[in-house]
Amino acid sequence: MNNLAPSSFVAQDMRNAPAALLDALQQRFGAQFSRADAVREQHGRDEGAIFAPPPDAVVFAQSREDVADAVRLAAQYRTPIIPYGAGSSLEGHLLAVQGGISIDVSRMNRILSIDADDLTVTVQPGITRKQLNEALRHQGLFFPIDPGADASIGGMTATRASGTNAVRYGTLRENVLALEVVLASGEVIRCGTRAKKSAAGYDLTRLFVGSEGTLGIFTEITLRLYPLPEAVSAAICSFPSIEAAVRTVISTIQLGVPIARVELIDAATVGLVNRHSKLSLREEPMLLMEFHGSPASVKEQAETVQELAGEYGGQAFEWAHTPEERTRLWTARHNAYFAGVQSKPGCRVITTDTCVPISRLADCLLASVQEAEASGIPYFLVGHVGDGNFHFGYLIDPDDPDQRMRGEQLSRQLVARAIEMDGTCTGEHGIGIHKMDYLVQETGAGAVAVMRSIKQALDPDNILNPGKIFRNPQPLR
Amino acid sequence: MNNLAPSSFVAQDMRNAPAALLDALQQRFGAQFSRADAVREQHGRDEGAIFAPPPDAVVFAQSREDVADAVRLAAQYRTPIIPYGAGSSLEGHLLAVQGGISIDVSRMNRILSIDADDLTVTVQPGITRKQLNEALRHQGLFFPIDPGADASIGGMTATRASGTNAVRYGTLRENVLALEVVLASGEVIRCGTRAKKSAAGYDLTRLFVGSEGTLGIFTEITLRLYPLPEAVSAAICSFPSIEAAVRTVISTIQLGVPIARVELIDAATVGLVNRHSKLSLREEPMLLMEFHGSPASVKEQAETVQELAGEYGGQAFEWAHTPEERTRLWTARHNAYFAGVQSKPGCRVITTDTCVPISRLADCLLASVQEAEASGIPYFLVGHVGDGNFHFGYLIDPDDPDQRMRGEQLSRQLVARAIEMDGTCTGEHGIGIHKMDYLVQETGAGAVAVMRSIKQALDPDNILNPGKIFRNPQPLR
Repeated sequence: MNNLAPSSFVAQDMRNAPAALLDALQQRFGAQFSRADAVREQHGRDEGAIFAPPPDAVVFAQSREDVADAVRLAAQYRTPIIPYGAGSSLEGHLLAVQGGISIDVSRMNRILSIDADDLTVTVQPGITRKQLNEALRHQGLFFPIDPGADASIGGMTATRASGTNAVRYGTLRENVLALEVVLASGEVIRCGTRAKKSAAGYDLTRLFVGSEGTLGIFTEITLRLYPLPEAVSAAICSFPSIEAAVRTVISTIQLGVPIARVELIDAATVGLVNRHSKLSLREEPMLLMEFHGSPASVKEQAETVQELAGEYGGQAFEWAHTPEERTRLWTARHNAYFAGVQSKPGCRVITTDTCVPISRLADCLLASVQEAEASGIPYFLVGHVGDGNFHFGYLIDPDDPDQRMRGEQLSRQLVARAIEMDGTCTGEHGIGIHKMDYLVQETGAGAVAVMRSIKQALDPDNILNPGKIFRNPQPLR
Repeated sequence: MNNLAPSSFVAQDMRNAPAALLDALQQRFGAQFSRADAVREQHGRDEGAIFAPPPDAVVFAQSREDVADAVRLAAQYRTPIIPYGAGSSLEGHLLAVQGGISIDVSRMNRILSIDADDLTVTVQPGITRKQLNEALRHQGLFFPIDPGADASIGGMTATRASGTNAVRYGTLRENVLALEVVLASGEVIRCGTRAKKSAAGYDLTRLFVGSEGTLGIFTEITLRLYPLPEAVSAAICSFPSIEAAVRTVISTIQLGVPIARVELIDAATVGLVNRHSKLSLREEPMLLMEFHGSPASVKEQAETVQELAGEYGGQAFEWAHTPEERTRLWTARHNAYFAGVQSKPGCRVITTDTCVPISRLADCLLASVQEAEASGIPYFLVGHVGDGNFHFGYLIDPDDPDQRMRGEQLSRQLVARAIEMDGTCTGEHGIGIHKMDYLVQETGAGAVAVMRSIKQALDPDNILNPGKIFRNPQPLR
């Protein structure tokens, strides 16, 4: 598995778990501890395109105390410890690039309290978004954030995830109210409250959200919930060009229409989705949309967008009227990634994640489509276009270094373009081990030095998921 | 002026500016530098109830380079440097409790770019919210966050401010996209982008928002803007009791009505407002409300809330139809603080700022009203009740230690109650020097130690606004 020389992974500062640590973990965790090859391999791979040697062992945590004890032992032996939720990250977040222990929190998947009157819920980190929504449904509530995979809430919090509903409901940044966190010392702290807002000191909650397991491991997460909308309507609309679709979205957002979802799929990707999900959508650039609100407001929003789409040559809307039709459409959209991957057996995917100010979306997308077409690398294209966020998936043969190089070149050009347009290299996937150089390019060496100095202050021995976001924590001065 | 022994200010670690620093500043800044008593006094007072000796001198910055040079000189002499915007903070944020230099950024009040198509604006920190909205109005845009005072955007960012519109539009936490910051070394960094979302590394933007000048001084701030709503309607409604008013609000929020503003004023405070603003509102507990949206949506929202109010005994709504009527009402609400203060000449105000989950709002408010009544201390009461946030202003005679003690006791009891209800000691005013003990009570010593360790990492000589949020930065371990 390690025959690839990943573009941004260089083995450095390897600190494999010493025998004494493995013995101590075995003694503390018994059947919750494994060194089996299959278990290690499973915990050393995510959905991204980079490989690394697996962790030395896996701890299956079942409680806050399990997490704290595992971290304390890892700290004692200065050995890396890497949190694992559902394994669905895309940027190598859970890879043991410096060796160490994987701590799997998927068994910590309980809902601790649903406070329906306050629209909040407190969960353990291992619960997945679908498990959570299943439990909420009979209360008339939902948690809207939906990355493609059925990710764990802990992983989504760690990567500041978003998804198709973010245009209306925000990302994990806006929807985490409070956290319980195990620090690098094994100490447990709490930050945030269930109040809707607070000005009480540094915003540690927002600092931990998106910290990719490098500052602490979550053991409880309090989230905002939303009432299930009184009315929902979904529609698809085909366009003569990507540009026409994107211009419709830009106008929709600029008009302030509170659209709940607006996703772009390009013509070729619609074809992949059709074959994967047995649908017969028109193989033209397409917007999938959803409107939430009161019946009157949904009707008003839909009419406004329909009118805008018409101005740009959009074909008549096709409505998904029943919940089943809607689920089928959105499942197809969520499976676009897998439809892309499976269209080229044996391939790996280099996924881009740029996000730009909405006024620059058309320029950014169109130039990048042109580049991808010219490269000859197969790709799929989907986008949370209401946020200015879109994903190319460049499908590369992992055994062909030239293809990988050309795929990475496309990705680099796209990132440079997005940053030049005041955008970001990653809207929702995170930095991981793949985008470390892009982070410096985006925010500057000075800001990255501040991040490193925070990391150094909170985790002086660099045991929490080391080698992610930036290469080596170094003091600010 | 220093005849008071403020409850939470103990002179410690005084580091007055040495003569060599004052000379160097005089040389660098010339007419932009002042040691005049009147200037120092003005920069050593905010709107709160605590006094401290004034700063040793004031620098009037006009550019990023001015700020960076002043910080570099202060760093060279390890002397505190305290940012000053409009002077409207309530928790002693700008007091020179450890001596040092005040850096006044009010002359840095330019708008650097309005990107109407992206709904963003980039400003210098000294512009006030009213100046900003004046400039935006002819573009059909507005920045909704409105603390009572005409605060500077820099100060609002530093204290994570909110106001009457936060129930719909969020606080500065949600509305700052990017920052340019001068660090304690004088180095300038940028964090965030104009993209709507990002998962690129630690959320430094959110860390600086609400850091009360202790981690860096802002020189540019990029904010989200909103289209002026197509339709606006405002109404007032009187209720037979505070409880009835609050129950109406709770139901409104729980139903998911996107109300733009919903403010509570108690009966006695309505009287103060009437006299201050020459109005003749019914002197009963009152909600002031505003609805934003399309004409149909505004009508729908208003009908829903009107029905709810009726169920709790609310009197018929009185509508403010014209922009002038609305402005008059909201100006009266914004002046409630001053109406309260001026009702007792010579008084100072101990202002509370608790915020609780919405389901606990009635219990928290009613118990606190009872306690305030029993104490005999005069008070006013206003609240951003849609957020679960409300303010008592206890009007105390600054020369009467017993009154101050009883006022602080009321405040302590209220904070304990809010924290017990999963709430926060401060929804929008910040910690400053007044709420440091409450912060520990709310989030725990462990979380405060993390904040201190971040402060230590970013400002090892503790020169940026020292003595705020927590007493002494100490290493985590």
